Amino acid sequence: MPQHSPAASRSSGDFPPFQQRHLISIADLKQHEIVDLLDRSERMIEISRQERKSLPTLAGKTQINLFFEPSTRTQSSFEIAGKRLGALVVNMSVKTSSVSKGETLIDTAATLNAMRPDVLVVRHSAAGAVELLSQKVGCSVVNAGDGAHEHPTQALLDALTIRNHKGTLAGLTVAICGDIANSRVARSNLLLLGALNVRTRVIAPRTLLPAGIENLATEVFTDMEEGLKGVDVVMMLRLQHERANGKMIPSVREYYRFYGLDEAKLACAKPDAIVMHPGPMNRGVEIDPAIADSARAVITDQVEMGVAVRMAVLDALLPARNQP
Amino acid sequence: MPQHSPAASRSSGDFPPFQQRHLISIADLKQHEIVDLLDRSERMIEISRQERKSLPTLAGKTQINLFFEPSTRTQSSFEIAGKRLGALVVNMSVKTSSVSKGETLIDTAATLNAMRPDVLVVRHSAAGAVELLSQKVGCSVVNAGDGAHEHPTQALLDALTIRNHKGTLAGLTVAICGDIANSRVARSNLLLLGALNVRTRVIAPRTLLPAGIENLATEVFTDMEEGLKGVDVVMMLRLQHERANGKMIPSVREYYRFYGLDEAKLACAKPDAIVMHPGPMNRGVEIDPAIADSARAVITDQVEMGVAVRMAVLDALLPARNQP
Amino acid sequence: MPQHSPAASRSSGDFPPFQQRHLISIADLKQHEIVDLLDRSERMIEISRQERKSLPTLAGKTQINLFFEPSTRTQSSFEIAGKRLGALVVNMSVKTSSVSKGETLIDTAATLNAMRPDVLVVRHSAAGAVELLSQKVGCSVVNAGDGAHEHPTQALLDALTIRNHKGTLAGLTVAICGDIANSRVARSNLLLLGALNVRTRVIAPRTLLPAGIENLATEVFTDMEEGLKGVDVVMMLRLQHERANGKMIPSVREYYRFYGLDEAKLACAKPDAIVMHPGPMNRGVEIDPAIADSARAVITDQVEMGVAVRMAVLDALLPARNQP
Repeated sequence: MPQHSPAASRSSGDFPPFQQRHLISIADLKQHEIVDLLDRSERMIEISRQERKSLPTLAGKTQINLFFEPSTRTQSSFEIAGKRLGALVVNMSVKTSSVSKGETLIDTAATLNAMRPDVLVVRHSAAGAVELLSQKVGCSVVNAGDGAHEHPTQALLDALTIRNHKGTLAGLTVAICGDIANSRVARSNLLLLGALNVRTRVIAPRTLLPAGIENLATEVFTDMEEGLKGVDVVMMLRLQHERANGKMIPSVREYYRFYGLDEAKLACAKPDAIVMHPGPMNRGVEIDPAIADSARAVITDQVEMGVAVRMAVLDALLPARNQP
Repeated sequence: MPQHSPAASRSSGDFPPFQQRHLISIADLKQHEIVDLLDRSERMIEISRQERKSLPTLAGKTQINLFFEPSTRTQSSFEIAGKRLGALVVNMSVKTSSVSKGETLIDTAATLNAMRPDVLVVRHSAAGAVELLSQKVGCSVVNAGDGAHEHPTQALLDALTIRNHKGTLAGLTVAICGDIANSRVARSNLLLLGALNVRTRVIAPRTLLPAGIENLATEVFTDMEEGLKGVDVVMMLRLQHERANGKMIPSVREYYRFYGLDEAKLACAKPDAIVMHPGPMNRGVEIDPAIADSARAVITDQVEMGVAVRMAVLDALLPARNQP
Repeated sequence: MPQHSPAASRSSGDFPPFQQRHLISIADLKQHEIVDLLDRSERMIEISRQERKSLPTLAGKTQINLFFEPSTRTQSSFEIAGKRLGALVVNMSVKTSSVSKGETLIDTAATLNAMRPDVLVVRHSAAGAVELLSQKVGCSVVNAGDGAHEHPTQALLDALTIRNHKGTLAGLTVAICGDIANSRVARSNLLLLGALNVRTRVIAPRTLLPAGIENLATEVFTDMEEGLKGVDVVMMLRLQHERANGKMIPSVREYYRFYGLDEAKLACAKPDAIVMHPGPMNRGVEIDPAIADSARAVITDQVEMGVAVRMAVLDALLPARNQP
């Protein structure tokens, strides 16, 4: 992966003020804002590779990680991102109670808001919950995943990983494979890649394709080998086990046979195609372990880009809040 | 809410040394110490409203939050308070084991004490447990709620909220309504308001009034409308659901009918009476949602005052420990 | 306990670079490295006894505490150690999933490594898991206990406690009593004391003695009074209750009668013998509460030394990583 780019040599102060207060959805971002966040992330990659991983632009700021759904991996990524920028980070794991969730969410929002945080990082099982919450608080809100709706920092880290490996996003074809219907990762990626005019393909059994997918993806395939022909990037999705062996998928074994990424199917892609996965992987379900461990897999790079993107997002959103 | 007061313009160094080592009980505080803590809190409200919410008076100090009972809300408030003052904050959630609790508590105290913390913030389900623990350690101890005994920072934040909304506590009448018998919030508030010569009323069904309550409250009522007549402050308590539908309360529905705060009952209070609740609210059980969301409710202000009061308490207790 | 030693007056910069990258096992350390870590710990005792407990040698470093087995006590000790040195500390509690643990562990290692930590502190239920993980990451790894294998910082803190109480380790006899077979604490202590030429005895029922124990301990006893004769240090182990009332031990009552430390048995040791326990104690199972609370018990000193040793280990390992 290239370690430097023109953007990386810029300090965060060199970027124009970011005009968004929240990051709820990729759909809210203009093309230049996406590129701006990717460029800011380059600087953050450098910071995290230094001996002293610290850029105290958020010193004196309060970040609350509010996870209604547990996710050790994503929460830690945001926690490390905030702490490397000097923020005071507080983790809150909230179990949704049995009472009316809408009310609870709004009361929780009001309570947290009164503690005067500068940013809330929120994951919730319900699509739209994070946006609702953002309307009730005076601080910035970052969506860390809301139901099957969006996971915008995942799409940004995926784009950053692709750009760093391929040098550019222009002219590429990206295939997203698996449970498209239930995946906020797929949705955010399709929106982001579409905004940057990247050709996208989705590949899934019909039962895992959502209605209207043809408006989001350039092309739709149900056959994996056909869909992977000539692509530059193969992006696998995590299969939710509870959805297999049920209505939508005959069995995990069958799923792997038709949609798991193995050598034979990957051979359809370009010889230098990279393989991505948002993690954690179900080895032998979505992906052949040999491919996951091969040099073509950029899965751990995605994790590294995740910290950088989250640092960039926090850094971009927070100064904007201080403008009159 | 007024944003400034004479106290707010003083730095924390302008206050005389605080003479207490622990904050276990409001009953241990002299009147001038209560006022001192409220005055110190004003400065802390300002800090938390600044862009950089930081006053590093506790840099290099170790604060351990030791919660034998979980409370995301209170623990976060103490965590944010400590971190805004620069303390190193460690959260410990301890499940009480099946062995003799007294022994375990003392061994736990000795173990934590050996890690050389500067302050332990402790919540425990047993009244008196926090005081017992404070006798076994060399550092300061703050009671974050012990059984049905006391919750002193809650009483301080409630008084601060009232003082900021009413300009003064002098001459006010405060009604506390609900499960008085089992409420450490009620007990600490009655002690604090009594110490400041504020008139207090308690309103509850007979089954939820503790023996000897007439020694703590100025007046005792079992009828809500009668009790609310002419009061300046209506302080609702949280109903523990497990106590309803049992011996003490006929049903949640019945409870709301007679003791839930609705427009008709609130109309008995002064027109400018404010409504308080320690949270989290059971909407429709203790309080009509419309009142909770109205301008008369100061419930989120209480949360903000909570962080400020906890900052003030930590700041006041810790320097005292360093005196010979 | 003596508060000063020649080592304590040295700053951490006065020590030569530490040549190890990880601390997985006492067996990996040379004698001079063990002494070096004990000497470095003296300085850290001083730091933790200061009013401002801070020595920012790890500022800008990222420490991840990765506990596959929960341990509030050990995790907090490492957390406080890292924070007192200025590190950014992230706690992760990971429940081992049902999938092949080897694979999961390696994927977890790769994921965390990509977040660019400087040190992983790892506890795992399987012997060897921490070493396996250390082979897959680019940062330092500290073993916080792996199955029945090793718990190196426990052995270091025990040795430091003994040295501080006795002035020296030379010429002492140390008895380790209890469940030797299943104890990583016993194993690490035997390795460390052996490396420093301290005479060691193990005392346990035959069923709790591992094969080959005579190669690790100087002497092996099954009778407690005989084994304690003339020893300088009595080190009790925690009994895992689940092992009692089963195959290996007739009952907890029987165990206490023959192997619990009471006044009669302790009278066999030297009059100035000290009593140690890694905690948490089962009072009345391994040890008479009166002895645990007596002046001969140095159990809370062990806890204090624990923080100091962990500070020393983190401080020693991390700069080594920055050398070419």
